[in-house]
Amino acid sequence: MITSRVNSQLKQIVRLLKKRSDRAEEGLFVIEGRKMFFEVLSQAPELLTKAYWAQSALAALSAEERAAAEACPHEEVADDVFDSVAETVTPQGVIALVKMRGQTPEQIAEGGRRLLLLETLQDPGNLGTILRTAEAAGFGVILSADSADTYAPKVVRATMGAIFRVPFAYAEHFPETLEKLKERGYTLYAAHLQGSVPYDEPDYTGPVGIMIGNEGNGLSDEVTAIADKRVRIPMEGEAESLNAAVAAAVLMYEVKRHRQ
Amino acid sequence: MITSRVNSQLKQIVRLLKKRSDRAEEGLFVIEGRKMFFEVLSQAPELLTKAYWAQSALAALSAEERAAAEACPHEEVADDVFDSVAETVTPQGVIALVKMRGQTPEQIAEGGRRLLLLETLQDPGNLGTILRTAEAAGFGVILSADSADTYAPKVVRATMGAIFRVPFAYAEHFPETLEKLKERGYTLYAAHLQGSVPYDEPDYTGPVGIMIGNEGNGLSDEVTAIADKRVRIPMEGEAESLNAAVAAAVLMYEVKRHRQ
Repeated sequence: MITSRVNSQLKQIVRLLKKRSDRAEEGLFVIEGRKMFFEVLSQAPELLTKAYWAQSALAALSAEERAAAEACPHEEVADDVFDSVAETVTPQGVIALVKMRGQTPEQIAEGGRRLLLLETLQDPGNLGTILRTAEAAGFGVILSADSADTYAPKVVRATMGAIFRVPFAYAEHFPETLEKLKERGYTLYAAHLQGSVPYDEPDYTGPVGIMIGNEGNGLSDEVTAIADKRVRIPMEGEAESLNAAVAAAVLMYEVKRHRQ
Repeated sequence: MITSRVNSQLKQIVRLLKKRSDRAEEGLFVIEGRKMFFEVLSQAPELLTKAYWAQSALAALSAEERAAAEACPHEEVADDVFDSVAETVTPQGVIALVKMRGQTPEQIAEGGRRLLLLETLQDPGNLGTILRTAEAAGFGVILSADSADTYAPKVVRATMGAIFRVPFAYAEHFPETLEKLKERGYTLYAAHLQGSVPYDEPDYTGPVGIMIGNEGNGLSDEVTAIADKRVRIPMEGEAESLNAAVAAAVLMYEVKRHRQ
Protein backbone atom coordinates (compact mmCIF):
# COMPACT_ATOMS: atom_id res chain seq x y z
CA MET A 1 0.00 0.00 0.00
CA ILE A 2 1.37 3.41 -1.01
CA THR A 3 0.73 5.89 1.77
CA SER A 4 3.17 8.67 0.93
CA ARG A 5 2.75 11.49 -1.54
CA VAL A 6 6.45 11.47 -2.33
CA ASN A 7 6.40 7.83 -3.46
CA SER A 8 8.70 7.41 -6.46
CA GLN A 9 6.13 5.45 -8.48
CA LEU A 10 3.54 8.22 -8.10
CA LYS A 11 6.17 10.72 -9.14
CA GLN A 12 6.80 8.68 -12.28
CA ILE A 13 3.07 8.77 -13.08
CA VAL A 14 2.91 12.54 -12.72
CA ARG A 15 5.97 12.90 -14.96
CA LEU A 16 4.47 10.61 -17.60
CA LEU A 17 1.18 12.52 -17.49
CA LYS A 18 2.95 15.82 -18.04
CA LYS A 19 5.99 15.22 -20.23
CA ARG A 20 5.93 13.92 -23.77
CA SER A 21 9.69 13.38 -23.81
CA ASP A 22 9.49 11.15 -20.72
CA ARG A 23 6.67 9.12 -22.27
CA ALA A 24 8.69 8.65 -25.46
CA GLU A 25 11.86 7.72 -23.59
CA GLU A 26 10.17 5.13 -21.38
CA GLY A 27 7.72 3.89 -24.03
CA LEU A 28 4.92 4.18 -21.47
CA PHE A 29 1.79 6.25 -21.12
CA VAL A 30 -0.91 6.68 -18.48
CA ILE A 31 -4.57 5.79 -18.66
CA GLU A 32 -7.14 6.86 -16.11
CA GLY A 33 -10.45 5.49 -14.95
CA ARG A 34 -12.17 2.14 -14.55
CA LYS A 35 -13.65 2.04 -18.04
CA MET A 36 -10.28 2.53 -19.72
CA PHE A 37 -8.59 0.07 -17.37
CA PHE A 38 -11.00 -2.76 -18.14
CA GLU A 39 -10.89 -1.89 -21.82
CA VAL A 40 -7.13 -2.31 -22.06
CA LEU A 41 -7.37 -5.40 -19.85
CA SER A 42 -9.80 -7.09 -22.22
CA GLN A 43 -8.25 -5.90 -25.48
CA ALA A 44 -4.53 -5.59 -24.95
CA PRO A 45 -3.60 -7.10 -21.56
CA GLU A 46 0.00 -7.55 -22.73
CA LEU A 47 0.37 -3.75 -22.82
CA LEU A 48 -0.72 -3.22 -19.21
CA THR A 49 2.38 -2.68 -17.07
CA LYS A 50 1.00 -1.79 -13.67
CA ALA A 51 -2.19 -0.39 -12.16
CA TYR A 52 -2.56 1.90 -9.15
CA TRP A 53 -5.89 1.60 -7.36
CA ALA A 54 -7.33 3.99 -4.84
CA GLN A 55 -8.06 1.70 -1.87
CA SER A 56 -11.78 2.48 -1.79
CA ALA A 57 -12.14 2.12 -5.56
CA LEU A 58 -10.62 -1.36 -5.53
CA ALA A 59 -12.84 -2.37 -2.61
CA ALA A 60 -15.91 -1.09 -4.49
CA LEU A 61 -15.43 -3.43 -7.47
CA SER A 62 -17.60 -6.50 -7.93
CA ALA A 63 -15.95 -9.79 -6.93
CA GLU A 64 -15.37 -10.67 -10.57
CA GLU A 65 -13.89 -7.28 -11.50
CA ARG A 66 -11.74 -7.33 -8.41
CA ALA A 67 -10.33 -10.76 -9.23
CA ALA A 68 -9.47 -9.55 -12.75
CA ALA A 69 -7.87 -6.37 -11.41
CA GLU A 70 -5.85 -8.24 -8.80
CA ALA A 71 -4.56 -10.71 -11.37
CA CYS A 72 -2.55 -7.85 -12.94
CA PRO A 73 0.51 -6.21 -11.42
CA HIS A 74 -0.97 -3.55 -9.19
CA GLU A 75 -0.53 -1.46 -6.11
CA GLU A 76 -3.06 -0.04 -3.71
CA VAL A 77 -2.85 3.64 -2.85
CA ALA A 78 -4.33 5.29 0.24
CA ASP A 79 -7.34 7.35 -0.83
CA ASP A 80 -6.02 10.72 0.32
CA VAL A 81 -2.69 10.11 -1.43
CA PHE A 82 -4.47 8.97 -4.58
CA ASP A 83 -6.63 12.09 -4.48
CA SER A 84 -3.53 14.27 -4.22
CA VAL A 85 -2.34 12.90 -7.55
CA ALA A 86 -5.94 13.15 -8.72
CA GLU A 87 -6.12 16.88 -8.06
CA THR A 88 -4.74 17.49 -11.51
CA VAL A 89 -5.88 14.41 -13.36
CA THR A 90 -9.35 13.21 -12.23
CA PRO A 91 -8.45 9.52 -12.50
CA GLN A 92 -11.72 7.99 -11.18
CA GLY A 93 -10.14 5.47 -8.83
CA VAL A 94 -7.48 3.88 -11.00
CA ILE A 95 -4.43 4.94 -12.96
CA ALA A 96 -2.40 2.50 -15.04
CA LEU A 97 0.86 2.49 -16.91
CA VAL A 98 0.50 1.11 -20.43
CA LYS A 99 3.15 0.24 -23.02
CA MET A 100 3.05 2.01 -26.37
CA ARG A 101 2.52 -0.29 -29.33
CA GLY A 102 5.34 1.31 -31.32
CA GLN A 103 4.24 0.69 -34.90
CA THR A 104 6.03 2.09 -37.95
CA PRO A 105 4.52 3.89 -40.96
CA GLU A 106 5.51 0.88 -43.09
CA GLN A 107 3.47 -1.45 -40.87
CA ILE A 108 0.49 0.89 -41.02
CA ALA A 109 0.67 1.05 -44.81
CA GLU A 110 0.80 -2.72 -45.28
CA GLY A 111 -2.12 -4.39 -46.96
CA GLY A 112 -3.27 -1.34 -48.88
CA ARG A 113 -5.63 -0.13 -46.21
CA ARG A 114 -7.21 3.32 -46.07
CA LEU A 115 -4.88 5.86 -44.53
CA LEU A 116 -5.34 9.20 -42.85
CA LEU A 117 -2.21 11.37 -43.09
CA LEU A 118 -1.99 14.17 -40.54
CA GLU A 119 0.45 17.06 -40.87
CA THR A 120 1.26 19.16 -37.78
CA LEU A 121 -2.06 18.47 -36.08
CA GLN A 122 -1.93 20.37 -32.79
CA ASP A 123 -5.17 20.23 -30.80
CA PRO A 124 -5.33 17.25 -28.39
CA GLY A 125 -9.15 17.08 -28.45
CA ASN A 126 -9.16 17.09 -32.24
CA LEU A 127 -6.48 14.42 -32.40
CA GLY A 128 -8.33 12.12 -29.98
CA THR A 129 -11.58 12.55 -31.89
CA ILE A 130 -9.78 11.84 -35.17
CA LEU A 131 -8.29 8.57 -33.85
CA ARG A 132 -11.75 7.55 -32.61
CA THR A 133 -13.32 8.33 -35.98
CA ALA A 134 -10.47 6.62 -37.87
CA GLU A 135 -11.14 3.33 -36.10
CA ALA A 136 -14.86 3.55 -36.89
CA ALA A 137 -14.19 4.38 -40.54
CA GLY A 138 -11.58 1.63 -40.89
CA PHE A 139 -8.52 3.87 -41.36
CA GLY A 140 -4.94 3.66 -40.17
CA VAL A 141 -3.25 6.95 -39.25
CA ILE A 142 0.22 8.32 -40.01
CA LEU A 143 1.22 11.58 -38.32
CA SER A 144 4.05 14.00 -39.04
CA ALA A 145 6.54 13.99 -36.17
CA ASP A 146 5.61 17.58 -35.19
CA SER A 147 1.97 16.66 -34.53
CA ALA A 148 0.58 16.54 -30.98
CA ASP A 149 1.29 13.43 -28.88
CA THR A 150 -1.32 10.70 -29.24
CA TYR A 151 -0.37 9.58 -25.71
CA ALA A 152 -1.13 12.91 -23.99
CA PRO A 153 -3.84 12.36 -21.34
CA LYS A 154 -6.41 14.55 -23.09
CA VAL A 155 -5.88 12.74 -26.40
CA VAL A 156 -6.09 9.31 -24.78
CA ARG A 157 -9.41 10.25 -23.13
CA ALA A 158 -10.88 11.67 -26.34
CA THR A 159 -10.10 8.46 -28.26
CA MET A 160 -12.61 6.59 -26.07
CA GLY A 161 -10.46 3.45 -26.21
CA ALA A 162 -9.45 3.65 -29.87
CA ILE A 163 -5.87 4.40 -28.69
CA PHE A 164 -5.50 0.65 -27.99
CA ARG A 165 -6.89 -0.45 -31.31
CA VAL A 166 -6.50 1.97 -34.19
CA PRO A 167 -3.23 1.46 -36.13
CA PHE A 168 -1.11 4.63 -36.03
CA ALA A 169 2.52 5.73 -36.29
CA TYR A 170 4.61 8.89 -36.50
CA ALA A 171 6.67 9.53 -39.64
CA GLU A 172 10.09 11.02 -38.92
CA HIS A 173 10.29 12.36 -42.48
CA PHE A 174 6.69 13.01 -43.45
CA PRO A 175 7.17 14.08 -47.12
CA GLU A 176 9.41 11.06 -47.78
CA THR A 177 6.84 8.76 -46.20
CA LEU A 178 4.16 10.21 -48.48
CA GLU A 179 6.34 9.67 -51.56
CA LYS A 180 6.87 6.04 -50.53
CA LEU A 181 3.13 5.55 -50.17
CA LYS A 182 2.68 6.74 -53.76
CA GLU A 183 5.35 4.27 -54.91
CA ARG A 184 3.38 1.53 -53.17
CA GLY A 185 0.30 2.42 -55.21
CA TYR A 186 -1.55 4.74 -52.85
CA THR A 187 -3.44 7.67 -54.35
CA LEU A 188 -3.13 10.70 -52.08
CA TYR A 189 -5.88 13.29 -51.67
CA ALA A 190 -5.15 16.59 -49.93
CA ALA A 191 -8.05 18.25 -48.11
CA HIS A 192 -7.59 21.79 -49.32
CA LEU A 193 -9.65 24.99 -49.24
CA GLN A 194 -8.46 25.75 -52.79
CA GLY A 195 -9.04 22.19 -53.98
CA SER A 196 -10.39 21.87 -57.50
CA VAL A 197 -12.09 18.48 -57.07
CA PRO A 198 -15.33 18.14 -55.04
CA TYR A 199 -14.62 15.64 -52.27
CA ASP A 200 -17.31 13.19 -53.39
CA GLU A 201 -16.13 13.00 -57.00
CA PRO A 202 -13.03 10.73 -56.91
CA ASP A 203 -13.24 6.96 -57.06
CA TYR A 204 -11.84 6.01 -53.66
CA THR A 205 -11.96 2.25 -54.14
CA GLY A 206 -8.18 1.66 -54.43
CA PRO A 207 -5.51 2.24 -51.77
CA VAL A 208 -6.27 5.76 -50.59
CA GLY A 209 -4.52 8.31 -48.37
CA ILE A 210 -6.42 11.37 -47.11
CA MET A 211 -4.18 14.27 -46.08
CA ILE A 212 -5.32 16.72 -43.39
CA GLY A 213 -3.28 19.70 -42.24
CA ASN A 214 -2.81 21.89 -39.21
CA GLU A 215 -5.90 23.47 -37.59
CA GLY A 216 -4.87 27.05 -38.36
CA ASN A 217 -2.81 26.77 -41.51
CA GLY A 218 -3.91 23.62 -43.31
CA LEU A 219 -1.38 21.53 -45.24
CA SER A 220 2.03 23.00 -46.06
CA ASP A 221 2.82 23.76 -49.70
CA GLU A 222 5.53 21.08 -49.69
CA VAL A 223 3.14 18.38 -48.57
CA THR A 224 0.25 19.61 -50.74
CA ALA A 225 2.52 19.34 -53.79
CA ILE A 226 2.95 15.59 -53.16
CA ALA A 227 -0.82 14.93 -53.33
CA ASP A 228 -2.30 13.40 -56.47
CA LYS A 229 -5.42 15.55 -56.12
CA ARG A 230 -6.59 18.43 -53.98
CA VAL A 231 -10.17 17.86 -52.85
CA ARG A 232 -12.55 20.47 -51.50
CA ILE A 233 -15.45 20.08 -49.08
CA PRO A 234 -18.00 22.69 -50.20
CA MET A 235 -19.09 25.26 -47.63
CA GLU A 236 -22.08 27.57 -47.49
CA GLY A 237 -22.52 30.86 -45.65
CA GLU A 238 -19.37 32.70 -44.66
CA ALA A 239 -17.65 29.72 -43.07
CA GLU A 240 -13.94 29.90 -43.84
CA SER A 241 -13.07 26.35 -42.97
CA LEU A 242 -14.19 23.27 -41.08
CA ASN A 243 -12.76 21.97 -37.84
CA ALA A 244 -9.92 19.54 -38.68
CA ALA A 245 -11.64 16.59 -36.98
CA VAL A 246 -14.85 17.35 -38.88
CA ALA A 247 -13.07 17.61 -42.23
CA ALA A 248 -11.27 14.32 -41.52
CA ALA A 249 -14.56 12.63 -40.59
CA VAL A 250 -16.44 13.83 -43.67
CA LEU A 251 -13.63 12.63 -45.96
CA MET A 252 -13.03 9.30 -44.21
CA TYR A 253 -16.73 8.44 -44.29
CA GLU A 254 -16.98 9.39 -47.96
CA VAL A 255 -14.11 6.97 -48.70
CA LYS A 256 -15.79 4.29 -46.59
CA ARG A 257 -19.07 4.85 -48.45
CA HIS A 258 -17.33 4.25 -51.79
CA ARG A 259 -16.05 0.89 -50.57
CA GLN A 260 -19.46 -0.47 -49.71
CA MET B 1 -10.46 55.03 -19.21
CA ILE B 2 -11.25 52.30 -16.69
CA THR B 3 -8.43 52.07 -14.16
CA SER B 4 -10.08 50.14 -11.32
CA ARG B 5 -10.54 46.42 -10.98
CA VAL B 6 -13.80 46.92 -9.12
CA ASN B 7 -15.37 48.84 -12.00
CA SER B 8 -19.03 47.84 -12.32
CA GLN B 9 -18.83 47.31 -16.10
CA LEU B 10 -15.95 44.86 -15.72
CA LYS B 11 -17.91 43.08 -13.03
CA GLN B 12 -20.82 42.74 -15.45
CA ILE B 13 -18.48 41.20 -18.04
CA VAL B 14 -17.17 38.64 -15.57
CA ARG B 15 -20.73 37.76 -14.58
CA LEU B 16 -21.81 37.37 -18.19
CA LEU B 17 -18.79 35.17 -18.93
CA LYS B 18 -19.60 32.90 -16.02
CA LYS B 19 -23.35 32.74 -15.62
CA ARG B 20 -25.79 31.45 -18.18
CA SER B 21 -28.78 32.79 -16.24
CA ASP B 22 -27.33 36.32 -16.29
CA ARG B 23 -26.68 36.08 -20.03
CA ALA B 24 -30.25 34.94 -20.64
CA GLU B 25 -31.73 37.63 -18.40
CA GLU B 26 -29.79 40.47 -20.01
CA GLY B 27 -29.90 39.07 -23.56
CA LEU B 28 -26.17 39.74 -23.84
CA PHE B 29 -23.06 37.64 -24.26
CA VAL B 30 -19.34 38.29 -24.36
CA ILE B 31 -16.92 37.86 -27.24
CA GLU B 32 -13.17 38.02 -26.91
CA GLY B 33 -10.32 38.89 -29.22
CA ARG B 34 -9.67 41.13 -32.20
CA LYS B 35 -10.70 38.60 -34.84
CA MET B 36 -14.14 38.06 -33.28
CA PHE B 37 -14.60 41.79 -32.69
CA PHE B 38 -13.99 42.75 -36.30
CA GLU B 39 -16.09 39.82 -37.46
CA VAL B 40 -19.18 40.96 -35.54
CA LEU B 41 -18.45 44.55 -36.60
CA SER B 42 -18.50 43.63 -40.28
CA GLN B 43 -21.33 41.12 -40.15
CA ALA B 44 -23.73 42.19 -37.43
CA PRO B 45 -22.74 45.67 -36.21
CA GLU B 46 -26.28 46.21 -34.86
CA LEU B 47 -25.62 43.48 -32.27
CA LEU B 48 -22.47 45.09 -30.88
CA THR B 49 -23.35 46.87 -27.62
CA LYS B 50 -20.01 47.99 -26.27
CA ALA B 51 -16.34 47.09 -26.60
CA TYR B 52 -13.63 47.22 -23.93
CA TRP B 53 -10.12 47.69 -25.28
CA ALA B 54 -6.89 47.18 -23.42
CA GLN B 55 -5.13 50.51 -23.89
CA SER B 56 -2.08 49.02 -25.62
CA ALA B 57 -4.21 46.81 -27.87
CA LEU B 58 -6.23 49.78 -29.15
CA ALA B 59 -3.05 51.77 -29.73
CA ALA B 60 -1.55 48.86 -31.69
CA LEU B 61 -4.34 48.80 -34.30
CA SER B 62 -3.77 50.15 -37.78
CA ALA B 63 -5.23 53.63 -38.40
CA GLU B 64 -8.12 52.12 -40.36
CA GLU B 65 -8.94 49.45 -37.74
CA ARG B 66 -8.69 52.01 -34.99
CA ALA B 67 -11.12 54.37 -36.71
CA ALA B 68 -13.61 51.49 -37.10
CA ALA B 69 -13.17 50.43 -33.47
CA GLU B 70 -13.57 53.97 -32.18
CA ALA B 71 -16.73 54.51 -34.20
CA CYS B 72 -18.48 51.95 -31.91
CA PRO B 73 -19.42 52.51 -28.30
CA HIS B 74 -16.26 51.59 -26.44
CA GLU B 75 -14.18 52.14 -23.36
CA GLU B 76 -10.45 51.93 -22.85
CA VAL B 77 -9.14 49.85 -19.97
CA ALA B 78 -5.72 50.21 -18.35
CA ASP B 79 -3.57 47.24 -19.38
CA ASP B 80 -3.00 45.86 -15.88
CA VAL B 81 -6.72 46.09 -15.07
CA PHE B 82 -7.62 44.45 -18.39
CA ASP B 83 -5.13 41.66 -17.67
CA SER B 84 -6.74 41.03 -14.28
CA VAL B 85 -10.01 40.26 -16.05
CA ALA B 86 -7.96 38.41 -18.65
CA GLU B 87 -6.45 35.99 -16.14
CA THR B 88 -9.42 33.73 -16.59
CA VAL B 89 -10.49 34.58 -20.10
CA THR B 90 -7.49 35.24 -22.39
CA PRO B 91 -9.28 38.00 -24.30
CA GLN B 92 -6.44 39.10 -26.62
CA GLY B 93 -6.84 42.83 -26.13
CA VAL B 94 -10.57 43.31 -26.54
CA ILE B 95 -13.78 42.10 -24.96
CA ALA B 96 -17.19 43.11 -26.27
CA LEU B 97 -20.79 42.80 -25.19
CA VAL B 98 -23.01 41.48 -27.97
CA LYS B 99 -26.80 41.20 -28.15
CA MET B 100 -28.32 37.75 -28.69
CA ARG B 101 -30.31 37.41 -31.90
CA GLY B 102 -33.20 35.75 -30.12
CA GLN B 103 -34.75 33.63 -32.88
CA THR B 104 -37.58 31.15 -32.36
CA PRO B 105 -37.82 27.55 -33.58
CA GLU B 106 -40.65 28.66 -35.89
CA GLN B 107 -38.37 31.22 -37.54
CA ILE B 108 -35.60 28.64 -37.95
CA ALA B 109 -38.02 26.18 -39.56
CA GLU B 110 -39.39 28.66 -42.09
CA GLY B 111 -38.66 28.05 -45.72
CA GLY B 112 -38.16 24.31 -45.40
CA ARG B 113 -34.48 24.52 -44.81
CA ARG B 114 -32.31 21.66 -43.52
CA LEU B 115 -32.46 21.40 -39.77
CA LEU B 116 -30.22 19.91 -37.13
CA LEU B 117 -32.14 18.98 -33.98
CA LEU B 118 -30.01 18.62 -30.84
CA GLU B 119 -31.29 16.93 -27.68
CA THR B 120 -29.46 17.56 -24.38
CA LEU B 121 -26.13 18.27 -26.03
CA GLN B 122 -23.71 19.00 -23.19
CA ASP B 123 -20.12 19.50 -24.30
CA PRO B 124 -19.29 23.14 -25.12
CA GLY B 125 -16.52 22.25 -27.59
CA ASN B 126 -18.82 19.84 -29.42
CA LEU B 127 -21.62 22.40 -29.54
CA GLY B 128 -19.36 25.11 -30.96
CA THR B 129 -17.98 22.74 -33.59
CA ILE B 130 -21.52 21.66 -34.51
CA LEU B 131 -22.68 25.25 -35.04
CA ARG B 132 -19.60 25.89 -37.19
CA THR B 133 -20.29 22.78 -39.28
CA ALA B 134 -24.02 23.58 -39.52
CA GLU B 135 -23.29 26.92 -41.16
CA ALA B 136 -20.93 25.30 -43.66
CA ALA B 137 -23.45 22.55 -44.48
CA GLY B 138 -26.34 25.02 -44.80
CA PHE B 139 -28.32 23.89 -41.74
CA GLY B 140 -30.32 25.74 -39.11
CA VAL B 141 -30.16 24.36 -35.57
CA ILE B 142 -32.87 23.79 -32.94
CA LEU B 143 -31.74 22.74 -29.46
CA SER B 144 -33.66 21.24 -26.56
CA ALA B 145 -33.78 23.72 -23.66
CA ASP B 146 -31.55 21.48 -21.50
CA SER B 147 -28.67 21.62 -23.99
CA ALA B 148 -25.50 23.59 -23.22
CA ASP B 149 -25.55 27.34 -23.75
CA THR B 150 -24.54 28.46 -27.24
CA TYR B 151 -23.39 31.74 -25.67
CA ALA B 152 -20.90 30.19 -23.21
CA PRO B 153 -17.39 31.56 -23.93
CA LYS B 154 -15.97 28.18 -24.97
CA VAL B 155 -18.86 27.56 -27.36
CA VAL B 156 -18.61 31.03 -28.89
CA ARG B 157 -14.89 30.52 -29.53
CA ALA B 158 -15.36 27.07 -31.07
CA THR B 159 -17.95 28.39 -33.53
CA MET B 160 -15.22 30.49 -35.21
CA GLY B 161 -17.72 33.26 -35.94
CA ALA B 162 -20.67 31.06 -36.94
CA ILE B 163 -22.43 32.18 -33.73
CA PHE B 164 -23.26 35.49 -35.53
CA ARG B 165 -24.53 33.82 -38.67
CA VAL B 166 -25.96 30.33 -38.27
CA PRO B 167 -29.71 30.33 -37.53
CA PHE B 168 -30.42 28.64 -34.19
CA ALA B 169 -32.99 28.62 -31.40
CA TYR B 170 -33.86 26.74 -28.23
CA ALA B 171 -37.15 24.84 -28.06
CA GLU B 172 -38.89 25.09 -24.69
CA HIS B 173 -40.87 21.92 -25.43
CA PHE B 174 -38.59 19.88 -27.67
CA PRO B 175 -40.89 16.92 -28.45
CA GLU B 176 -43.78 19.29 -29.32
CA THR B 177 -41.49 21.29 -31.57
CA LEU B 178 -40.50 18.09 -33.39
CA GLU B 179 -44.15 17.12 -33.87
CA LYS B 180 -44.85 20.56 -35.35
CA LEU B 181 -41.97 20.15 -37.77
CA LYS B 182 -43.51 16.91 -39.01
CA GLU B 183 -46.87 18.68 -39.49
CA ARG B 184 -45.03 21.27 -41.59
CA GLY B 185 -43.75 18.52 -43.88
CA TYR B 186 -40.33 17.83 -42.42
CA THR B 187 -39.05 14.25 -42.44
CA LEU B 188 -37.11 13.56 -39.25
CA TYR B 189 -34.13 11.20 -39.10
CA ALA B 190 -32.76 10.06 -35.73
CA ALA B 191 -29.03 9.26 -35.58
CA HIS B 192 -29.20 6.02 -33.64
CA LEU B 193 -26.79 3.19 -32.85
CA GLN B 194 -29.64 0.72 -33.35
CA GLY B 195 -30.86 2.42 -36.50
CA SER B 196 -32.07 0.08 -39.22
CA VAL B 197 -31.44 2.39 -42.19
CA PRO B 198 -27.86 3.06 -43.41
CA TYR B 199 -27.34 6.83 -43.23
CA ASP B 200 -26.65 7.21 -46.95
CA GLU B 201 -29.79 5.36 -48.08
CA PRO B 202 -32.65 7.89 -47.58
CA ASP B 203 -33.57 10.48 -50.15
CA TYR B 204 -32.78 13.68 -48.28
CA THR B 205 -33.96 16.11 -50.96
CA GLY B 206 -37.12 17.32 -49.17
CA PRO B 207 -37.35 19.30 -45.90
CA VAL B 208 -35.15 17.29 -43.57
CA GLY B 209 -34.44 17.28 -39.84
CA ILE B 210 -31.45 15.35 -38.46
CA MET B 211 -31.74 14.46 -34.76
CA ILE B 212 -28.59 14.08 -32.62
CA GLY B 213 -28.63 13.15 -28.95
CA ASN B 214 -26.57 13.58 -25.82
CA GLU B 215 -22.85 12.65 -25.94
CA GLY B 216 -23.16 9.82 -23.44
CA ASN B 217 -26.72 8.58 -23.84
CA GLY B 218 -27.81 9.44 -27.37
CA LEU B 219 -31.42 10.42 -28.07
CA SER B 220 -34.09 9.72 -25.45
CA ASP B 221 -36.70 7.08 -26.22
CA GLU B 222 -39.42 9.75 -26.25
CA VAL B 223 -37.65 11.81 -28.88
CA THR B 224 -36.49 8.78 -30.91
CA ALA B 225 -40.12 7.65 -31.15
CA ILE B 226 -41.03 10.88 -32.96
CA ALA B 227 -38.50 10.27 -35.75
CA ASP B 228 -39.72 9.02 -39.13
CA LYS B 229 -36.61 6.87 -39.50
CA ARG B 230 -33.66 5.79 -37.38
CA VAL B 231 -30.44 6.00 -39.38
CA ARG B 232 -27.16 4.32 -38.55
CA ILE B 233 -23.63 5.36 -39.41
CA PRO B 234 -21.72 2.10 -39.87
CA MET B 235 -18.66 1.56 -37.67
CA GLU B 236 -15.74 -0.83 -37.97
CA GLY B 237 -13.43 -2.17 -35.28
CA GLU B 238 -14.70 -2.07 -31.73
CA ALA B 239 -15.79 1.56 -31.80
CA GLU B 240 -19.00 1.89 -29.79
CA SER B 241 -20.05 5.28 -31.09
CA LEU B 242 -18.86 8.42 -32.82
CA ASN B 243 -18.28 11.79 -31.20
CA ALA B 244 -21.54 13.79 -31.41
CA ALA B 245 -19.99 16.56 -33.51
CA VAL B 246 -18.55 13.97 -35.90
CA ALA B 247 -21.88 12.13 -36.27
CA ALA B 248 -23.64 15.45 -36.89
CA ALA B 249 -21.04 16.40 -39.51
CA VAL B 250 -21.20 13.09 -41.39
CA LEU B 251 -25.01 13.26 -41.52
CA MET B 252 -25.27 16.95 -42.42
CA TYR B 253 -22.77 16.57 -45.25
CA GLU B 254 -24.58 13.50 -46.55
CA VAL B 255 -27.80 15.53 -46.69
CA LYS B 256 -25.97 18.38 -48.41
CA ARG B 257 -24.50 15.96 -50.95
CA HIS B 258 -28.00 14.73 -51.86
CA ARG B 259 -29.09 18.28 -52.62
CA GLN B 260 -26.35 18.95 -55.12
